[in-house]
Amino acid sequence: MVDLAGLVDRARAGEARAVARLISLVEDASPRLRDVAAALAPHTGRARVLGLTGPPGVGKSTVTSALIAALRRRGRRIGVLAIDPSSPFSGGALLGDRIRMHDHTTDPDVFIRSMATRGHLGGLSLATPQALRVLDAAGYDLVLVETVGVGQSEVDIVSLADTTLVLLAPGMGDGIQAAKAGILEVADVFVVNKADRDGADATVRDLIHMISLGRREIPGPHWRPRVVRTVATTGDGVDELVSAVDAHHDWLVSHGELEARRTRRAADEIEAIALRTLRERLGHVRGDETLDRLSKQVVAGELDPYTAADRWCAGLRPDP
Amino acid sequence: MVDLAGLVDRARAGEARAVARLISLVEDASPRLRDVAAALAPHTGRARVLGLTGPPGVGKSTVTSALIAALRRRGRRIGVLAIDPSSPFSGGALLGDRIRMHDHTTDPDVFIRSMATRGHLGGLSLATPQALRVLDAAGYDLVLVETVGVGQSEVDIVSLADTTLVLLAPGMGDGIQAAKAGILEVADVFVVNKADRDGADATVRDLIHMISLGRREIPGPHWRPRVVRTVATTGDGVDELVSAVDAHHDWLVSHGELEARRTRRAADEIEAIALRTLRERLGHVRGDETLDRLSKQVVAGELDPYTAADRWCAGLRPDP
Repeated sequence: MVDLAGLVDRARAGEARAVARLISLVEDASPRLRDVAAALAPHTGRARVLGLTGPPGVGKSTVTSALIAALRRRGRRIGVLAIDPSSPFSGGALLGDRIRMHDHTTDPDVFIRSMATRGHLGGLSLATPQALRVLDAAGYDLVLVETVGVGQSEVDIVSLADTTLVLLAPGMGDGIQAAKAGILEVADVFVVNKADRDGADATVRDLIHMISLGRREIPGPHWRPRVVRTVATTGDGVDELVSAVDAHHDWLVSHGELEARRTRRAADEIEAIALRTLRERLGHVRGDETLDRLSKQVVAGELDPYTAADRWCAGLRPDP
Repeated sequence: MVDLAGLVDRARAGEARAVARLISLVEDASPRLRDVAAALAPHTGRARVLGLTGPPGVGKSTVTSALIAALRRRGRRIGVLAIDPSSPFSGGALLGDRIRMHDHTTDPDVFIRSMATRGHLGGLSLATPQALRVLDAAGYDLVLVETVGVGQSEVDIVSLADTTLVLLAPGMGDGIQAAKAGILEVADVFVVNKADRDGADATVRDLIHMISLGRREIPGPHWRPRVVRTVATTGDGVDELVSAVDAHHDWLVSHGELEARRTRRAADEIEAIALRTLRERLGHVRGDETLDRLSKQVVAGELDPYTAADRWCAGLRPDP
């Protein structure tokens, strides 16, 4: 039996192995997941969460690495969760990227962990919010959640992060075009990386134009996304990036939005856990054989899916 | 009050307005949604469902249009659901594509409907499976569900379709590379469109190589995805495409997989409806103010999200 209180204490004292052990416990959805969550709760709420996303090839890991270095110079302790979109066919494809971050692995104030996405939904692992809570409780000032910006993960990262960075690079053409709508909605700060390349000016101009169009549709006071140019390989622009990130944080605090974002995040988390729990109870109470039988009746046209769902749910009822 | 039985009868007699009216009823999640579903059920289970997806620019609408023409020559009645990824910023972006399909709008045996994706999840509209049931009940032999292949929608389309076509075009480079893993898992038939362009041979070769790698990992008897070349603008290769689609259908039937896929599809649908219903009951029984209060306690570190979820769910309990 793991001594959870002791493990949390050691994680809070800066012991990387204890942090890693706690993340493994939440990642494996161990039977003690609830105990771990309870032990972490009193220590959470302090870490700032930074989301970092963008299409493949923009230099996400290089930017992350440069950002870590800049934040370390400011004395901040950094946790990194690198989300690996995993698939039976592409398993360790991002390993090369991860290696770039290993510049920081000997620094005791930087903790880096790769997490696989699980399940067919393609989104962030269900364990990600829990891993975030581990790093928060362990006293990291800032947690970077980095993920490749393909589809769903962009949306998911927003629901986790206080501040979302969207990375682009010049000359990505149609990719940016296609991703525009989604990107505009999630970005608090745009990073045009590889800004020494041809086309950087055009990319920045496009973004600024896009932002000016988008903001008209948002009612009430709102943050106007910033656009920062970086050349992460040389470190150019990274200080400006940190300033933009801090400015967004200050804006969130002064407008009461930090609390609001975090409350929404907690609500999403509670809702996801609640629905998963209810799904498990359905399987337990009514059995998946019931679902199979109902599904066959729907296929045969004997039942419509709403009636089938009602019958399946009949075992769960509200308090009188 | 709508006369549902009469409406279903008219839809089954081939009246396009009745079909459109029924789809609107399920799309708006009208209070009579359950009645509509019940009225449709006895007439469902006959239509073949074809999913069609691929990245922007491969010519999805042109292929769809050519496919409709080829299937009409074989006397089949066709329903089309074109899924529009909608966003406050990109609203009617695909209008141009839709217009290409209007070649078929005067044909009473072709019914085309655009459906917007709803909600923040980015996937297919929750109404799509219900709209499919409308077209099935109305007696269309084949229903094409067409969607742009960005992220989640690819996965969703598989859960709806008997046969999934993935469209590619030569020279899309990194895009294909990035999408490979996801694509391999969902495609029953690959369509290399614009096959008269440079690079078509290389794309076909890459796909065949990829398929030969992938199949090793799948246990048991399985369908080996076919690769078909088309030039949809001239109609070249479209007959071969229809043959490949029919061959996959025959394979599904002879291996008992059609029934299995449809049962899984029904189970997914029942589960989604059940969880949505439970979510609504939670809001009704416990109130969203409860969720808000619990979320604030989680943010304050007074409660962990698992305990919060348990408290929120406490109002729903299983039968003794």
